[in-house]
Amino acid sequence: MSRSTVQLKTPKGTRDWVGDDLLLREKIFKTITDVFKRHGGIPLDTPVFEIKEILSEKYGEDSRLMYDLEDQGGELCSLRFDLTVPFARWLAMNGHVTHIKRYQIAKVYRRDQPAIARGRLREFHQCDFDIAGVYDPMVPDAEILCVITEVFEALGLGITIKINHRRILDGLFAVAGVPDDKIRSISSAVDKLDKISWDDVKKEMLEKGLSDEVADQIGEYVRRSGNINDMLEMLKSNEKLNSNKDVSAGIEDISLLASYLKAFGIVDTVSFDCSLARGLDYYSGLIFEVIMQAPSGPGSQSKSPASQVGSIAAGGRYDNLVGMYGKRPIPCAGISFGVDRIYTILKPSSEKDSKTSPVSRNLDVYVMAIGGKDFDGLLLERMAVTRELWKAGIRAEYMAKAKPKSLQQFKAAIGVPLAIILGQEELAAGQVRLKVFRSNADEEKDMGQLISRESLVEEVQKLL
Amino acid sequence: MSRSTVQLKTPKGTRDWVGDDLLLREKIFKTITDVFKRHGGIPLDTPVFEIKEILSEKYGEDSRLMYDLEDQGGELCSLRFDLTVPFARWLAMNGHVTHIKRYQIAKVYRRDQPAIARGRLREFHQCDFDIAGVYDPMVPDAEILCVITEVFEALGLGITIKINHRRILDGLFAVAGVPDDKIRSISSAVDKLDKISWDDVKKEMLEKGLSDEVADQIGEYVRRSGNINDMLEMLKSNEKLNSNKDVSAGIEDISLLASYLKAFGIVDTVSFDCSLARGLDYYSGLIFEVIMQAPSGPGSQSKSPASQVGSIAAGGRYDNLVGMYGKRPIPCAGISFGVDRIYTILKPSSEKDSKTSPVSRNLDVYVMAIGGKDFDGLLLERMAVTRELWKAGIRAEYMAKAKPKSLQQFKAAIGVPLAIILGQEELAAGQVRLKVFRSNADEEKDMGQLISRESLVEEVQKLL
Repeated sequence: MSRSTVQLKTPKGTRDWVGDDLLLREKIFKTITDVFKRHGGIPLDTPVFEIKEILSEKYGEDSRLMYDLEDQGGELCSLRFDLTVPFARWLAMNGHVTHIKRYQIAKVYRRDQPAIARGRLREFHQCDFDIAGVYDPMVPDAEILCVITEVFEALGLGITIKINHRRILDGLFAVAGVPDDKIRSISSAVDKLDKISWDDVKKEMLEKGLSDEVADQIGEYVRRSGNINDMLEMLKSNEKLNSNKDVSAGIEDISLLASYLKAFGIVDTVSFDCSLARGLDYYSGLIFEVIMQAPSGPGSQSKSPASQVGSIAAGGRYDNLVGMYGKRPIPCAGISFGVDRIYTILKPSSEKDSKTSPVSRNLDVYVMAIGGKDFDGLLLERMAVTRELWKAGIRAEYMAKAKPKSLQQFKAAIGVPLAIILGQEELAAGQVRLKVFRSNADEEKDMGQLISRESLVEEVQKLL
Repeated sequence: MSRSTVQLKTPKGTRDWVGDDLLLREKIFKTITDVFKRHGGIPLDTPVFEIKEILSEKYGEDSRLMYDLEDQGGELCSLRFDLTVPFARWLAMNGHVTHIKRYQIAKVYRRDQPAIARGRLREFHQCDFDIAGVYDPMVPDAEILCVITEVFEALGLGITIKINHRRILDGLFAVAGVPDDKIRSISSAVDKLDKISWDDVKKEMLEKGLSDEVADQIGEYVRRSGNINDMLEMLKSNEKLNSNKDVSAGIEDISLLASYLKAFGIVDTVSFDCSLARGLDYYSGLIFEVIMQAPSGPGSQSKSPASQVGSIAAGGRYDNLVGMYGKRPIPCAGISFGVDRIYTILKPSSEKDSKTSPVSRNLDVYVMAIGGKDFDGLLLERMAVTRELWKAGIRAEYMAKAKPKSLQQFKAAIGVPLAIILGQEELAAGQVRLKVFRSNADEEKDMGQLISRESLVEEVQKLL
């Protein structure tokens, strides 16, 4: 092996996680999965790469952002782009599963422009909960909105869930005069209204071949949002829209949803936003996106950190994806939480709470030895004592030196609440010292109290 | 999107994990990380792929098994092959870290021949604990062997740790007459002694250019194993070996190690095995491998399931890897647990313990509604009650149907300990029924006891 001169970095759009950052991320995972489990969720884990053909044609324009594995002889594979298509593949492969609530937390991969400070990376975590199976209309959809509410209640974050319906959106486009074959591509232009101005969205639509008139009509329709009941009234009162069968089917779904959200007591968390489109091709019914701040008009650009993070969860109904694999269709609806963005929002407050160093060891006891001139360091004795503590499940360390200096050991113990201090004479008398660290104390002078060597585990346990 | 005719499968050597299998795997992860935390371990997470050049030349003959990402314009990357090289890369990049105990659990990727029944896959988990930094000789190495012992104590598995030393092995080869440039390749042949017979290993050595005489001399040296002290005696008494400077340096290390293992009370778990070589190039000192059954002579082939699984953890000291990235060297030693193999061993006993179905929902309460002919199903009321339970952290479900039949609901509640049963008249009187399921009871006739609607969460909590 030769010395390497390669530049040391993680690949573009990826990062390392260490210590307390990672523990905070795991705490977020646990908070979210506890909610999933309460709802009867079952965990699933799928491989990080899938057979390329299984993923292709599922993501519309975004497919170009997929990472492909090199052809090394064998199957052609790509890294997973989301957790939804792998779930659909799993359902299609497992014919005995007709109904399931499944959850999955895993990394997904997109060759996008990264913006690390805002929590947008090429390798990032998704955290998904989906309900698959035939049920009465909108009942699973309502439960998913309830799961979203409970997750953010548990995380202590105030949110708004923006909803829309693919059939309402498609109906609006048809009524405005968009040709069928342009609907998905115009839809993805409209979806950018929360990031760029209406003028830029319109420009994109004209480039995609719409007339000025059709574009303006779309603008009039989609730049509307508000609470569900007001929006339903508005849509119902517009004869031209209401007579479109897609729009009216969507209105029926959302009316039913509104009654369920009322039963859950969460109707006020939801805003009906006609500009919400969601980029991915596979959605077929209700779609939703979760944002931090209270909803403002579409196209408005707030400068708060939360709004810069963008949507922190998103999902919808996709009834046709599983059937696309040539077997029985299974209707599904689900939500994906953007855990890295949630982490970006929660990190500042977690740092205020914690007084420990960014990479804390979280130890209970430091085992040290102190003696005079001819002192041999008592390494074997420190090892034996520490092993007893470990066996009892206590977090402990000692200095990995045969003859450590006393000051070195006190320095290494900073931040640890307790110390066991060994000395030659005390040990000979069957005793050790147990010391409780106090801030601002002259630590090296206070050598703790003498306790029996035999009962040290018990004495430490009393103090933890 | 068109219908896909692609064969539905996971890529070769990969699998899906679902439900209780996954929960068992997570339990194993938690058991292991609890031990790591006790020893002051700090978690690290690195990207699933690394810049290809950073990984190359670190794995010897095994490098050909790396998965490469396709060149899509940008950096050339490969999937990580283990967690050790990414840790070394992280250390080299983070100059302020001079001493750390880090742990990482993550999937790694090898284009090997899979053997799924034995827990050998192309995508599999490793679970690593490493100690980096300059300490007194063999102190970290001894702690790692102690971590291994504690992990398997916590998992309830009896093990043997086979150890050897790279310098002893290199010395043996030199004394036997192997040319320097053939040592790594002969080492990887010897490493196969636990899987194939001595005759096959010898054949491979002859093909690699050794003479019959040299091969036989190696065979005489490496087919020795036993407890540490006996083996040390044997090596010390062989003048030819003992006068080699690598062998004698190795003997000194292992003598020191033996005294530390005695202090930890774990010396009997360890067997000194001269045939142990470990395939990877980067090891430089003590190496070790953990097997399930008591050690038998090298080359023997037991047919027990545990021995078919092969080694369940392995590691060693690698003092030169970090320095290879052109910055300061940091000596390291670590252990990697083969969690998928441990899972394969623990799964049968976990199934005997569990009486639930392989994919259990682990619910606390099923919320149902029952009524007469004109009964409307009480969906909104079931939703409102379930939401109260969810809010209180109770795991609950209801049937996602507007008008479910009573039998359907009782079937769906199988395996759930409690039910809340709603009826039109009871609700009007501010009451619901709380039912405790008993096995073999005629469930549909026992409708539980009447309790107040207002106190239902409290009543359920009393029973959980």
